[in-house]
Amino acid sequence: MPILEAIPNYSEGRRPEVITAIISCFSRPGVYLLDAHSDQDHNRSVISAAGEPEPLLEALFAATAEAARLIDLRRHEGAHPRLGATDVIPLVPIEGLTMEDCVAYSRVLGARIGGELAIPVYLYEHSATRPERRNLAEIRRGEFEGLPARLKEPGHEPDYGPAAAHISAGATVVGARRPLVAFNAYLDTDRLEVAKAVAKAVRASSGGLVGVKALGLAVPDQGLVQVSMNLVDTEATPIQRALELVQIEAASYGARVIKTEIVGLVPEKVLLEAARFYLGLEGFSPGQVLEIRLKEAAVHG
Amino acid sequence: MPILEAIPNYSEGRRPEVITAIISCFSRPGVYLLDAHSDQDHNRSVISAAGEPEPLLEALFAATAEAARLIDLRRHEGAHPRLGATDVIPLVPIEGLTMEDCVAYSRVLGARIGGELAIPVYLYEHSATRPERRNLAEIRRGEFEGLPARLKEPGHEPDYGPAAAHISAGATVVGARRPLVAFNAYLDTDRLEVAKAVAKAVRASSGGLVGVKALGLAVPDQGLVQVSMNLVDTEATPIQRALELVQIEAASYGARVIKTEIVGLVPEKVLLEAARFYLGLEGFSPGQVLEIRLKEAAVHG
Repeated sequence: MPILEAIPNYSEGRRPEVITAIISCFSRPGVYLLDAHSDQDHNRSVISAAGEPEPLLEALFAATAEAARLIDLRRHEGAHPRLGATDVIPLVPIEGLTMEDCVAYSRVLGARIGGELAIPVYLYEHSATRPERRNLAEIRRGEFEGLPARLKEPGHEPDYGPAAAHISAGATVVGARRPLVAFNAYLDTDRLEVAKAVAKAVRASSGGLVGVKALGLAVPDQGLVQVSMNLVDTEATPIQRALELVQIEAASYGARVIKTEIVGLVPEKVLLEAARFYLGLEGFSPGQVLEIRLKEAAVHG
Repeated sequence: MPILEAIPNYSEGRRPEVITAIISCFSRPGVYLLDAHSDQDHNRSVISAAGEPEPLLEALFAATAEAARLIDLRRHEGAHPRLGATDVIPLVPIEGLTMEDCVAYSRVLGARIGGELAIPVYLYEHSATRPERRNLAEIRRGEFEGLPARLKEPGHEPDYGPAAAHISAGATVVGARRPLVAFNAYLDTDRLEVAKAVAKAVRASSGGLVGVKALGLAVPDQGLVQVSMNLVDTEATPIQRALELVQIEAASYGARVIKTEIVGLVPEKVLLEAARFYLGLEGFSPGQVLEIRLKEAAVHG
């Protein structure tokens, strides 16, 4: 049975009744709610749900309709940039699906949101129809408030739906992407410049590792600093390589990684691959993991 | 749904039709054949199967009956010590079962083999009814050939079945135990004495780590030696601690672990725990693994 994951972001993090109404759209057979997190400062909620593609896409459409009904961006304020009531819907292949399958699902969902809800939809990441649309930040530039003006610019036509912003729900970004791992390494120093320098050394945008985004942040209540990473392509750059490079770069400033954390969910194979690396296992296959073998045996008879 | 694993050992590794007949006992709803390995020198086959306790116990009983019908230990020779046609049946708790549950299952299975097949049954490991019966090697001492004499000794009465050996099928040992991980570390030397000294340092029986059995072996075709370990209690001694101690002890002889291997199956949490250790993850929970969360969500609705 193929498994698709979606991590939709909604521009409401304060009104519990609105958040509950959106979450309830994911209560249907074949769909599993994995996580839901609302941030009051960001005024934003992020939901993780997974399941069979058809009912999950149905749930995502229903939640987008509900968000458009209940959220009015003209009265929305929050620290996080946003373009729409349903701001972005990433689709991630988990089991038995290719990235191309997910791109196809993003088109089906995008066309339906555009056509039935009259919300402009942009495709991003692997679903992008133009190179400049791969990047969410670029699509979202100007945010909800700047959308009417941007929609009039040539080359900014949406992929689906009307070429005018939805008056209260703005626009929605949909696309297929790889699983993302939020991985933070804490350094035993309070010098923010060290965290910033290490982040700069490890992130792809400034000469570091492919598929790594990184920022240096202060963690004053612990007297530490943090290299906060998003690993957006753990096939290309596994978690252990990111950690080892952070260790090496930090050492050049006399600092050390004293602990790390994974925020949210992580695909099983990311941790199995880390175990294989550090244990030095030769000829290891995930089929040797009892629970995985059992699942395969149950599926294939 | 609770999941029990069994790793029964049969004293036949050469006649394919016998092996096939035994394996076919595990083809039934609710039971999954995970692995089957036959060794010609040992003249022995080891099967891994898992599933719901009731059908798995049914399959184990059927396979024991089939082995008694097809194997005559009076004409059996092989390098591995053996007491019966079905030599030993370890039961391992995998999901939703305690060790006590597995002890209860071993009693049910043992009583049935003793009663219906007239094969003497000894309970071992966590199921043992006397301290000296915890150890399989101790129960098996004298092997099939010595069994009639040993059965006459006071204190050697079987736990179930007749107090006389089955004429062709001998006796069978049944019991609950923890999952076992077969883990080998290769050292970059051909000095067997180094592997033996390291094995001695790390194994429980000579002052090393609790739950670790170890032997030093030559691997002449690779010009290496191997510390061959059985980790019989990975809750007490996790795989990474065994590896790190092997590294430290080997270093004192100027040797290094250059690769390792896991033979057969390994419980998922053993590798997740190794990943947690080496990545330095703080506050990590297995529920953060997407596939585990998905399974939990599917079970609990």
